[in-house]
Amino acid sequence: MTTINAPHRLYLHEDEMPTRWYNLRAGMKELPDPMLLPDGTEAQEEHLYPVFCKALAHQEMDSATEYVDIPEEVLSIYKVYRPSPLCRAYDLEKYLGTPARIYYKFEGNNTSGSHKLNSAVAQAYYAKAEGLTGITTETGAGQWGTALAEAARYFGLDLIVYMVKVSAEQKPFRKIMMETFEAKVLASPSDTTNVGRALLEADPDNSGSLGTAISEAIEVAVTTEGYRYVLGSVLNQVLLHQSIIGLETELAFEKLGEYPDVIVGCTGGGSNLGGLIAPFMRDKIAGKKDVRVVAVEPASCPSFTRGEYAYDFCDTGKTTPLARMYTLGSGFRPSANHAGGLRYHGMSPILSKLYHDGYMEAVSVEQSPVFEAAKLFSRLETILPAPESSHAIKATIDEALRCKETGEEKTILFGLTGTGYFDLNAYDQYNKGTMTDRVPTDDDLMKSLKDLPQIGA
Amino acid sequence: MTTINAPHRLYLHEDEMPTRWYNLRAGMKELPDPMLLPDGTEAQEEHLYPVFCKALAHQEMDSATEYVDIPEEVLSIYKVYRPSPLCRAYDLEKYLGTPARIYYKFEGNNTSGSHKLNSAVAQAYYAKAEGLTGITTETGAGQWGTALAEAARYFGLDLIVYMVKVSAEQKPFRKIMMETFEAKVLASPSDTTNVGRALLEADPDNSGSLGTAISEAIEVAVTTEGYRYVLGSVLNQVLLHQSIIGLETELAFEKLGEYPDVIVGCTGGGSNLGGLIAPFMRDKIAGKKDVRVVAVEPASCPSFTRGEYAYDFCDTGKTTPLARMYTLGSGFRPSANHAGGLRYHGMSPILSKLYHDGYMEAVSVEQSPVFEAAKLFSRLETILPAPESSHAIKATIDEALRCKETGEEKTILFGLTGTGYFDLNAYDQYNKGTMTDRVPTDDDLMKSLKDLPQIGA
Repeated sequence: MTTINAPHRLYLHEDEMPTRWYNLRAGMKELPDPMLLPDGTEAQEEHLYPVFCKALAHQEMDSATEYVDIPEEVLSIYKVYRPSPLCRAYDLEKYLGTPARIYYKFEGNNTSGSHKLNSAVAQAYYAKAEGLTGITTETGAGQWGTALAEAARYFGLDLIVYMVKVSAEQKPFRKIMMETFEAKVLASPSDTTNVGRALLEADPDNSGSLGTAISEAIEVAVTTEGYRYVLGSVLNQVLLHQSIIGLETELAFEKLGEYPDVIVGCTGGGSNLGGLIAPFMRDKIAGKKDVRVVAVEPASCPSFTRGEYAYDFCDTGKTTPLARMYTLGSGFRPSANHAGGLRYHGMSPILSKLYHDGYMEAVSVEQSPVFEAAKLFSRLETILPAPESSHAIKATIDEALRCKETGEEKTILFGLTGTGYFDLNAYDQYNKGTMTDRVPTDDDLMKSLKDLPQIGA
Repeated sequence: MTTINAPHRLYLHEDEMPTRWYNLRAGMKELPDPMLLPDGTEAQEEHLYPVFCKALAHQEMDSATEYVDIPEEVLSIYKVYRPSPLCRAYDLEKYLGTPARIYYKFEGNNTSGSHKLNSAVAQAYYAKAEGLTGITTETGAGQWGTALAEAARYFGLDLIVYMVKVSAEQKPFRKIMMETFEAKVLASPSDTTNVGRALLEADPDNSGSLGTAISEAIEVAVTTEGYRYVLGSVLNQVLLHQSIIGLETELAFEKLGEYPDVIVGCTGGGSNLGGLIAPFMRDKIAGKKDVRVVAVEPASCPSFTRGEYAYDFCDTGKTTPLARMYTLGSGFRPSANHAGGLRYHGMSPILSKLYHDGYMEAVSVEQSPVFEAAKLFSRLETILPAPESSHAIKATIDEALRCKETGEEKTILFGLTGTGYFDLNAYDQYNKGTMTDRVPTDDDLMKSLKDLPQIGA
């Protein structure tokens, strides 16, 4: 068996941290289809100015620039919690009896508990640099909201977070975390927006969705002086910021003399996997190296594996431009029994294009086996993984067990996006055997996909 | 100003991790007074065998051995989550405008979220090595219980945790964490022990105390075949295991060309501070180096600053041998409004002796300023500190502000023992302005101190 002298946790020195983000689009043979306005014409950078601050609108539309300098102030915050460790799961390998080498990039060592802080810091920085006074956003499971609250507080920006009502009720601690950073947290749908009021009028018990919370946050951003909207996943700009994950990983692997054969990552909107694969996909597209990339999604929200590659709105209120992506329809809502995030109806247009063009694979997994994998991991690796991240753990274990059968010494890398301290009710359900799995029926999907806009199709 | 080229987070390589614990007693000019049996005679190692496994009973009584080899299996688990980072709080220094250099050793990067895992792994290892099948313990805030659940699960030991009833009710997530690692968690007082039944008979609403939970856990340990009891603080053996914190810190400081002028640590039973100072106190006692050591305790449980240095029981049920320590009386219970741990009536006999002999200082702080410091820290350092650790943050800030006045470039080191993800209700109280401070009156203390045993006095 090949011996690689990897420590359990490999930390780069902060001076080795990459100082530029990598723009995955710059290396793609074919670009993702352009964003469209509701009338079917191509959206331009200026069309985004009412929603995003200018620097971020530019990053959203800029497919050409290969590397983007990370601003000094962003770097100085990154250095407080980064570089994040590249970990070798020796005990998991041993437990599984696999010849595969299992690595994971762990992004949970910061207060927000996830990789979301990487983009939150960047987005808050640019908003502040342009003289904005406040930002709005939505949050589901709460990781993004927490990260952004932290970043906004750092730069002295006001922040309004629309939190999916059912999450706000189930996760009061997430709300307190955000409030500890002075964010204003409103359960969505709320009576503070036209979108929210209309939904509440139709159904006072509406428990909310990510798509609705996005609509509310955008409405407030575009109607409040000095405010803009920010989003924690899906967007091209977010994948750009998250490339720091992959760039650090690439460097750490170089030090070890390793290169991944397979990269596994969970996908809700795609920010983690898009960031993790950035430099590896660059080399794969360029034909320099080969790596299999596996996106793992919950069976209850299967955008890649059962969705359509089509133009769709990014929000339920249908107020955003249209993006071509794998989608379940903007009205799709995963079953309420699904724990954690990964509930978005669509998917990063960049990842969607890569998947469509055959550069990556996707699998879906049900949540009980995901929690079984999470529990195994927690007792071997002294990290309690977030349910989201645990999708990747489950798929990694499956891959490692296949290596056991074939005897292949594959190098497997997965993204451990965060910790599960706020998801203990879900762990409790699993411990007690009351966790259920529910996947949408074909009829469910047909209904929500029927609603796809007929534009750009 | 002196320039020290410290990274924000200094991680030693795992190969640099110390392979021996340091026994603080071996360097002391005068040893702590011996443990006594209730009849006033000196306890011998054998007297502890019914309670502790033999290796740990030996460590408890062995004042002579200077360095103890860390067993291979313990080292291999340490390497999964250690060495822990020595962090430089640049942003806090800048915010305070202090010429002091502020460092902290952060122990929160493991599932248990605190330094407690260092001793839990060791104690579970020795129990397993002697062929025991189970262990019992108590937990208050829940950090120790979580750490031990993790360690027991790793070694395949059964674990029963008596959790102070009020904590079990206020912190359901801590209970779920322990159950996720297959521990059996019982609210104390319970109907499973004589001690518990007697207390419940007298008062069915008894909300429990750490001292009571200890009595219950010991009762079960000594009456169950193949079981022993383990404790997360106070004991000499625990300070021995926690010396890994200080030994790593010493090495990291050597690399930086630094040496602390002041070491600050929170103290409940003393395990964190005792571990952090180990090598520095060794050199101070030997006259090789000088360092001020400041213990920080909550004003609501002021063992050092308002207790007596006397022989006392370690539990409320008065079933343990007697230790000479700073104590508020074994019947003392801090006000229910006090958040977090640091609620023990006594104090490590080693630290008590050092304090008594003038090798260290102690201060007490009220909890509102502690949470103010915690909030400031969280937004500057991207770590949400545990309330316990935040006592040290508060005292460190005070020290750094004194340096600002005097212009002294002191090197301050404090112990950041863990994260506060399970303490958000307390943060919420602070955010809402409903947090209260309550310190015991002189009358309160007189009452609980009147009950001190008249033995060995």
